[in-house]
Amino acid sequence: MLGEGWVTIDWGTTNRRIFVLGPDGQVLSRHADARGVTAIAPGGFPAEIAELRARFGDRPFLLAGMIGSNRGWIEAPYVPCPVTLPLLAERLAWAEPGRTAIVPGACVDRGDAAEVMRGEEVQLLGAAAAGLVPPDAALCLPGTHAKWAMLEQSVLTGFRTVMTGELFALLRNHSILSGSLKGEVRADAAFRDGVRRSLEDCTLSADLFGARARMLLGKLAEADASSYVSGLLIGADLRIGLTMVADGTVALIGDPALTRLYGAALEEAGHTCAEIDGEQAFLAGIRAIAEKLS
Amino acid sequence: MLGEGWVTIDWGTTNRRIFVLGPDGQVLSRHADARGVTAIAPGGFPAEIAELRARFGDRPFLLAGMIGSNRGWIEAPYVPCPVTLPLLAERLAWAEPGRTAIVPGACVDRGDAAEVMRGEEVQLLGAAAAGLVPPDAALCLPGTHAKWAMLEQSVLTGFRTVMTGELFALLRNHSILSGSLKGEVRADAAFRDGVRRSLEDCTLSADLFGARARMLLGKLAEADASSYVSGLLIGADLRIGLTMVADGTVALIGDPALTRLYGAALEEAGHTCAEIDGEQAFLAGIRAIAEKLS
Repeated sequence: MLGEGWVTIDWGTTNRRIFVLGPDGQVLSRHADARGVTAIAPGGFPAEIAELRARFGDRPFLLAGMIGSNRGWIEAPYVPCPVTLPLLAERLAWAEPGRTAIVPGACVDRGDAAEVMRGEEVQLLGAAAAGLVPPDAALCLPGTHAKWAMLEQSVLTGFRTVMTGELFALLRNHSILSGSLKGEVRADAAFRDGVRRSLEDCTLSADLFGARARMLLGKLAEADASSYVSGLLIGADLRIGLTMVADGTVALIGDPALTRLYGAALEEAGHTCAEIDGEQAFLAGIRAIAEKLS
Repeated sequence: MLGEGWVTIDWGTTNRRIFVLGPDGQVLSRHADARGVTAIAPGGFPAEIAELRARFGDRPFLLAGMIGSNRGWIEAPYVPCPVTLPLLAERLAWAEPGRTAIVPGACVDRGDAAEVMRGEEVQLLGAAAAGLVPPDAALCLPGTHAKWAMLEQSVLTGFRTVMTGELFALLRNHSILSGSLKGEVRADAAFRDGVRRSLEDCTLSADLFGARARMLLGKLAEADASSYVSGLLIGADLRIGLTMVADGTVALIGDPALTRLYGAALEEAGHTCAEIDGEQAFLAGIRAIAEKLS
C-alpha cells in the first residue's frame, strides 16, 4: 500500500506534525501547525484530508494521536497493555479503507487501574525500535499530561499519567498565585527547593498555598515563585513516576525547555537521564507499523 | 471604649459579615453582603466605614479578616504562633485611633515552615473561649483554602493551609475535566472512593487525570465525577491535616455543605468529627478581644 510514498501525522489536541515520506520511508518534508483535532469542526475530517492530499499528493495517510479519539475523526479503541508495534498495526482503524488508517491509543485497564494515551505509544515503542533506549527502559514524556512508561523487552507494559503541565497552567492563569507566576521557570535553586519538598513530603495541595505564605513572610522572592511552584509540581510528578522506575536512567522525550527541568529534578532524586529525540522515535514507530501494511 | 455598643465585621476577600452589638455584647442585628475587600477600591475604606456608621450608628468598629491584609485598609502584621486572644488584642492595628481597630492575622514562621491566616484565628480561639471545643483540640475549617489548626490549652500553636476548594474550582471551571465536573458533589460511594484513594496513595496529580481515564474506560460514571474528584482532593487534604491530629475528634467549622463532606471523609479515615457553629465561635473570640479594650 505504501510503496508510492505516504504521509503520516502525529495529530494532537491542539497541534499536529505532518511528515511526507518517500517509498523507502525517508522524510521528504515536515510541517507543523496548530490544526489539532479541536481546531477542526466535527465531521470536517474528510474535507481536511482532501485538502492535505491536494497539498502533499494523493498518497496513503497513517495518522496517530487524538485523531483517533471520540473528539477526532473515527474512534480507534485503546489497546490494553502489554502493547507492541505489530499489535498496534493489527488494530488500526480504517477511516478510508485502504487509504487512511488511524493508530489506536494504548490503555491500562486492570482492576482499579485506569490509564489512557494516544500518540505517545508510537513514540515510546519507536524509541525502542530505533535503539534509542534499551529494550528494558523507563521513559518520561513531560507535558500538559506527563507520561511515565515502562518498556520490558521492547513491550509497553504499563504507564502513568500526571497532570503536571495542566495544573501549572491552571495555577498560572487562574489561581490566587497567578500574579506571582508570570515569570520564566528556571532549573535553579528555587526550583530544586520545590522538587525536594515534594520528594520529601506528600503535601502538594498544602505546599501550593505555602508558596503564597512563603512570599508573604519573606521566605520566597516573587521572582522565584514560578520556579518554586514548578519544582513542587514536577517533584510530585517524579514521586509518582519513579515508583515505576528501578534504579538507573530515565529516558526523557519532549520539548527541551521541559526535559531540562525534568533532568534537574531527576538529578535531585538521584537518577540520571538521557534525552531522546521525539521525532526520531515517532518516525521509527510509525515506519514499523507501516511495514506491517506492505 | 465599647460601653456604648459596637460593630464588628468578619471582612473577607469576597464577602463580609457584620454584627451590631449592644453594650453587653449581645447581637442587635446581623448583615451579610458581597462587599469583601476586593470589592472596595484602594483608598475607599474610610468612606466605606463612614457609610457603615451612617447605617449602624456612630459606634466603635472592630474588624477582622482580609481587611488587615496588604489588599485591605491598613496592614495588621501577622502574630506568629503561639497565639492567644489577649495577644491579638495587644497587637490591634488602629485604622482610626480609638474608634476603628483591625485584628491581626496569625502566622507560622519557623525555619522552613510558613503559614498565614486572617480571620480564622478569631474563630479558632473563640471556639475554645466559648467552650465549643476542649482546650486541647484539632479543628478544621474547610473552604477555598482549608485550614487545620491545633489548640493546646486554648492556645493556637500551629496550623496548615490546604488549597482544596481552590483546586476544585480550577478543575471545575478551566481544566480538561471541566465538562464532567458540573454536577453536585455528594458524600456518596464515588466520593468515598476518591477519599480512600488519596488516603492510601500519594498520587493526587495522577489521580486527577485518572478520573478522565476512568470515565473513558467505563470505570467511573460521568455523573459521579464531581463527587469522585472532590473526594480525591478532600482525601489529600485529610492526609495532610491529620498529621496534626492525634487520635480522636476533629472539630469542623464552616458551610454545612462542606462540613458534611469532610465529616464523611473523616469517617473513612477512622476519625470522628463535631460540627461547631462558626458565628458563635467568631463572636466569642471577638468579644474576648473587645473586653481587653474596656
